[in-house]
Amino acid sequence: MNTVELIRKKRNGFELTTEEIEFLISGYTKNKIPDYQFSAFLMSVFFKGMSTKETAALTKAMLYSGKVIDLGSIKGTKVDKHSTGGVGDKTSLILAPIVAAAGVNVPMISGRGLGHTGGTLDKLEAINGFRTDLNLSQYKNTIKKCGAVLIGQTANIAPADKLIYSLRDVTATVESIPLITGSIMSKKLAEGIDGLVLDVKTGSGAFMKKMSDAKTLAESLINTAKEFDKKVLAMITDMNQPLGNYIGNWLEVYESAKVLQGEYVEDLCTVTHNLAGAMIFLGGKAKSIEEGIQISEEMVKSGKAYDKFLEVVKIQKGDINLIKNLESYPKAKFSDKVLAEKDGYLKSVDNYEIGMAALDLGAGRATKEDIIDPKAGIIFNPKIGMKIKKGDVIAEIFTDRKKMIDKVKTRISNSIELSNNKVSKPKLIKSILS
Amino acid sequence: MNTVELIRKKRNGFELTTEEIEFLISGYTKNKIPDYQFSAFLMSVFFKGMSTKETAALTKAMLYSGKVIDLGSIKGTKVDKHSTGGVGDKTSLILAPIVAAAGVNVPMISGRGLGHTGGTLDKLEAINGFRTDLNLSQYKNTIKKCGAVLIGQTANIAPADKLIYSLRDVTATVESIPLITGSIMSKKLAEGIDGLVLDVKTGSGAFMKKMSDAKTLAESLINTAKEFDKKVLAMITDMNQPLGNYIGNWLEVYESAKVLQGEYVEDLCTVTHNLAGAMIFLGGKAKSIEEGIQISEEMVKSGKAYDKFLEVVKIQKGDINLIKNLESYPKAKFSDKVLAEKDGYLKSVDNYEIGMAALDLGAGRATKEDIIDPKAGIIFNPKIGMKIKKGDVIAEIFTDRKKMIDKVKTRISNSIELSNNKVSKPKLIKSILS
Repeated sequence: MNTVELIRKKRNGFELTTEEIEFLISGYTKNKIPDYQFSAFLMSVFFKGMSTKETAALTKAMLYSGKVIDLGSIKGTKVDKHSTGGVGDKTSLILAPIVAAAGVNVPMISGRGLGHTGGTLDKLEAINGFRTDLNLSQYKNTIKKCGAVLIGQTANIAPADKLIYSLRDVTATVESIPLITGSIMSKKLAEGIDGLVLDVKTGSGAFMKKMSDAKTLAESLINTAKEFDKKVLAMITDMNQPLGNYIGNWLEVYESAKVLQGEYVEDLCTVTHNLAGAMIFLGGKAKSIEEGIQISEEMVKSGKAYDKFLEVVKIQKGDINLIKNLESYPKAKFSDKVLAEKDGYLKSVDNYEIGMAALDLGAGRATKEDIIDPKAGIIFNPKIGMKIKKGDVIAEIFTDRKKMIDKVKTRISNSIELSNNKVSKPKLIKSILS
Repeated sequence: MNTVELIRKKRNGFELTTEEIEFLISGYTKNKIPDYQFSAFLMSVFFKGMSTKETAALTKAMLYSGKVIDLGSIKGTKVDKHSTGGVGDKTSLILAPIVAAAGVNVPMISGRGLGHTGGTLDKLEAINGFRTDLNLSQYKNTIKKCGAVLIGQTANIAPADKLIYSLRDVTATVESIPLITGSIMSKKLAEGIDGLVLDVKTGSGAFMKKMSDAKTLAESLINTAKEFDKKVLAMITDMNQPLGNYIGNWLEVYESAKVLQGEYVEDLCTVTHNLAGAMIFLGGKAKSIEEGIQISEEMVKSGKAYDKFLEVVKIQKGDINLIKNLESYPKAKFSDKVLAEKDGYLKSVDNYEIGMAALDLGAGRATKEDIIDPKAGIIFNPKIGMKIKKGDVIAEIFTDRKKMIDKVKTRISNSIELSNNKVSKPKLIKSILS
């Protein structure tokens, strides 16, 4: 096979065969195809897309570039959740213990945050001592013992994805449905799952700003999962404002622990229970998503989910006392408040700006090399539709970076829009696809 | 400026500014932008195209990556011709002496052949001793002395083009009108010309198989030339069969010399006199193309063009005796004939196949590193519309590669199609644009 001819074939809109895709991916992974040819191929895929068959072949080639974990020796079904990322999206921390408590195994391999979105791994590491770098036997033992495990991507999980993503990042080829699908699914399928719930976010704080794009991605992910005979379900959820009120790594652990202790945060709890309910359903412990949601809520009410959370933190060497005494966590050097400048109903939030404001404070990464400050972040109080009075606290900010305070306050102020007329709340679960 | 953002801007179909294009080209030429980003940019240009302004900026950036020759010290206008390439296209060898004899300077920097098309440089070098590697002062002196000079691209002429072309070649980004335009025009504008006649070929042996694509390319070239205040004119000419009857490097020198000595080869002479006439017109030595054509024909009839040819060969150190005794050239080790298998009118020629057959015999290059055999080639006798009888000699082939003979004979046989009905001749000059 000839690489230039394969680039030309895709460029001209023809479907590549499974063998051709395998040739390209394994050639690139083994350093036989140079970056400059692979980036031209990626840009052709950006423009011409891929069929379901091609996307499955891409995913398969990426998946088998590394190790595929076999969890066959562990009893019960294994179901994971994947979110396309957002601001304040801490559902993984809450639903993993809920679903495990309900008897469904949750083998979760998560990523780090980049740009305006946070990453589950960074949040977990805000807990002193929490180890996300388990090896394969520790991974298996943990899930065997407590039904859930939350780790980071190891070097032998889909190494092709790491290589390809680095190239996409610098060649403007990130925003491609089949490439996103291959990247997500190759990692998720390597976990050893039976089922997968997808949280495809849409709105100003999501990668898919438009509902139609979110739907296209959800369908692509579902089709690919089905090609691998996995149970799958996707929810398209709202990301036009932060999920919950806390943004920043420790702040999100804090809010998650509070929810597991029984505190009710409307949007966060609704989305989390829906996703957890879907996982419990796919895991065979409920006859429907609705029944799954009921079980999920019971797991919180009964305290079983919170106990499971403590169990997971403990087995992964996190500091339990910190969770038990949430207020004991070190505080950021500086804090300040953003106040409402006038009366009105909250009409919209530029949620990307909120995510970037958190990054400015030290909670995120502009580049992969940046170091995160777990204490930094924002408590963002209002929700779309809420009535606000001049002087109300819109947000509290926490940071060690004194010189960023004024910039961030302005950034947050500018990101919200008030209206004199009543505004209705956005629908949280916009669509369920399977 | 940020390279990824510029790739994304083009990818999303926006017009880049002159400064942005300059940043990309000079960044790539100076090795500040890596191959993998530039190839993603090239693929974006392939899909999204470029405006006239962008194409001019691209051409300018490529042009000024190297030396722009100033021929201001040489009296008279300087007009060159560029052909997009074809099979048997030897017009440069004939028209350069014609136009110089008519009093218009012809500063010609040519390329080598690749794939199914030949290159003027390779043809000239079939003449023993002919030097195409003149330095700048030799280039100027030659044109000052005899009004024409034919050399190869030096390292300091549009080095960006050489770099970019190498990358396009391996990333399936050759077939892009703005990229082709930048490549052609950056080299031509570096020659120090006042005017340019473009021979855009269309048909089975051309790069632009379709008339509509040829027209688009011609318009892009014309628009770009005008942005640089050059006199310009384009002819779209037929390439559905070889031009003239001789294909191969020495064979084409042979046919060119014969034409300059007064032999009449209908299609070759028609196209050559049209192009030469246009050059004489742009050079201000005729009031119209038609008058230019008359002058061109007179230059041949009077022997002035042939004398000029000898003068050019001599000044560039070529062996004059070879031209004066054309039959003295060494012969290929093997020759054979392709005979017509049945009666009929020649309906079509797959001219790409004829070009590739010549390459098989040793007359061309599959890769840039291949070495050319100047003796190798084909004399292809019939023209579309001609009546052919079974047993007629369709082609004579010449090669040192014995084992290619049968393959090539079959290739040539398969490339022609006969019809029982009369077939009309293709129009040679399909369109003139300015």
